[in-house]
Amino acid sequence: MIIPVKWSDEGVLMLDQRLLPTEEKWLTLRTYNDVAMGIKEMVVRGAPAIGVSAAYGVALGARQFVGMDLTDFEDEIDYIGEVLAKTRPTAVNLFWAIDRMKRTFQRAKADGKSIEEIKQILLDDAKAIHDEDIESQRLIAEFGGELIENDSTVLTHCNAGALATGGVWGTALGVIRGAVKQGKSVAVVADETRPYLQGARLTAWELHEDDIPVTLITDNMSGHLMKKGQIQAVVVGSDRIAANGDVANKIGTYMVAVLARRHNIPFYVAAPLSTVDLDCPTGDSIPIEERDEREITHVKDVRLAPEGISVTNYAFDVTPNELVTAIITEKGVARAPYTESLRKQFED
Amino acid sequence: MIIPVKWSDEGVLMLDQRLLPTEEKWLTLRTYNDVAMGIKEMVVRGAPAIGVSAAYGVALGARQFVGMDLTDFEDEIDYIGEVLAKTRPTAVNLFWAIDRMKRTFQRAKADGKSIEEIKQILLDDAKAIHDEDIESQRLIAEFGGELIENDSTVLTHCNAGALATGGVWGTALGVIRGAVKQGKSVAVVADETRPYLQGARLTAWELHEDDIPVTLITDNMSGHLMKKGQIQAVVVGSDRIAANGDVANKIGTYMVAVLARRHNIPFYVAAPLSTVDLDCPTGDSIPIEERDEREITHVKDVRLAPEGISVTNYAFDVTPNELVTAIITEKGVARAPYTESLRKQFED
Repeated sequence: MIIPVKWSDEGVLMLDQRLLPTEEKWLTLRTYNDVAMGIKEMVVRGAPAIGVSAAYGVALGARQFVGMDLTDFEDEIDYIGEVLAKTRPTAVNLFWAIDRMKRTFQRAKADGKSIEEIKQILLDDAKAIHDEDIESQRLIAEFGGELIENDSTVLTHCNAGALATGGVWGTALGVIRGAVKQGKSVAVVADETRPYLQGARLTAWELHEDDIPVTLITDNMSGHLMKKGQIQAVVVGSDRIAANGDVANKIGTYMVAVLARRHNIPFYVAAPLSTVDLDCPTGDSIPIEERDEREITHVKDVRLAPEGISVTNYAFDVTPNELVTAIITEKGVARAPYTESLRKQFED
Repeated sequence: MIIPVKWSDEGVLMLDQRLLPTEEKWLTLRTYNDVAMGIKEMVVRGAPAIGVSAAYGVALGARQFVGMDLTDFEDEIDYIGEVLAKTRPTAVNLFWAIDRMKRTFQRAKADGKSIEEIKQILLDDAKAIHDEDIESQRLIAEFGGELIENDSTVLTHCNAGALATGGVWGTALGVIRGAVKQGKSVAVVADETRPYLQGARLTAWELHEDDIPVTLITDNMSGHLMKKGQIQAVVVGSDRIAANGDVANKIGTYMVAVLARRHNIPFYVAAPLSTVDLDCPTGDSIPIEERDEREITHVKDVRLAPEGISVTNYAFDVTPNELVTAIITEKGVARAPYTESLRKQFED
């Protein structure tokens, strides 16, 4: 059972995903600045995992506060939120978790709680966010598993597994684990997901640990496999879903979705409602992170490309809702028109 | 001016493309077995370059023959052809070059030439194949350059440059060089082309050497750039073109072609007629090479993926003719229906 982020009295424990699969090393992050670094440097990654980590980061920052003044404490909580919010722009779970922690603070303050009491309330809520995340995935696994046919091969892109979430199930891999739990025979094709190789390093590792058959391919190979009839469904996670169902996810998702449509293969997105951003009317308003070119020009210390050239490194892309067969959340399976079906899930 | 394969009295000289861009090292291949190894191990790669190399390999093998009997010599030539033909299955230029050398042998034999004379005739024909290849590319550059608009950005996949051919122009990069020579301002986006990274290692290097602006991306990023309107044309090479215009090329070409069609971006294929295989009615009859899984699981000695998983490594895919805007050969620009336009080019 993989839980990549944990609370301890020493601080936030993170499984260092930069080192997987060759090394399993846990880091202890003792300050909220360390947690921000852990998110920014991708010790932990994946939208739900980033959300859980940020919640723990706020709780950790609150615990660090040594003042006696509630207004100073409030300023500090706001500042901690700003530091954490600056780490990565695309995954909305980050902002969702920070906002929820700030609302929890406001409620506790309004209830007349002391600074020490509020510190505990914030930690309790961070743990609740973590628990709810795992429970959401369990439900996503159950609802999504129903959509996967027996004896099928499912393509997934990037890692939307236990490692990308609070743990245990994962979102896209939760759907696969759910199908397996329902007794279905499912094989997975994982594309390696350049440049950060989450597919090769993380998805392949997770599934292999769980004895779910996994075949690794390069990102440019999925179209060929679809054309040969070797893929029956695609399941991916998401970093932010707009109100209209446009899906931001790891760069390359859009190409997989276009190919899936061409081959009449269902394209499913699995994500908790905390990934849905009703403030983004469409995918056009989702900010797309650009990352360091070294991720592309090097693998560890091995230089792949000549010096002196330009490099573009978009970390995400947006798949338009028309290519999405269904969005699976903890509330069930949403289908087009998503503007209505997603809003209804929030109201339920 | 890049010429990756050369004849010398010592044997066939090959620029070791496995080491680019970090090291420029020439190998001297002194036997036809060495040449076969050089093709199989991808010291040289790219369909036209493989064809030129195989022709030199036959000439080199002929020179190695020490017997006095013409029938033995003929058997030896056939055997050399078999060894060379077993190296790589997809690029038809390999078989085309071997067949042409065998026909040259037969003609010389029928003309009553001596073994020593035939050795020289074979070497002369290998050199002619090389010269004709370069001349074909010059014409492809001229015809193809006309199709590229001024102030445009062209996406190319893999390396179909000077390094992939007899040298100087390249096929897809020939089209780009042709446009530049015609005074147009052209920028190139090169995708890295996993697993062998011909885009990152070779295309970026070639274009940078020529001062043509090049931006490197990962393979899964081209769809996003197309969606943002940043790509005006796609040009790729080919390893084998079926009689109906279906195009086998480096794995991932098919996905690029599907995305180009979705975004109404012209998708051009540049290749000499020696790449067109009229014996293949459609792409379905083109054999697709599968290569070692280590190409995917490792970069040099760095392990990327966990041990114990399955890996699939198709080296090529087939793009159906309906996605191909035009095929540019040394005879001009062929358009659909390709069954007619390609056959007409052979007849011209």
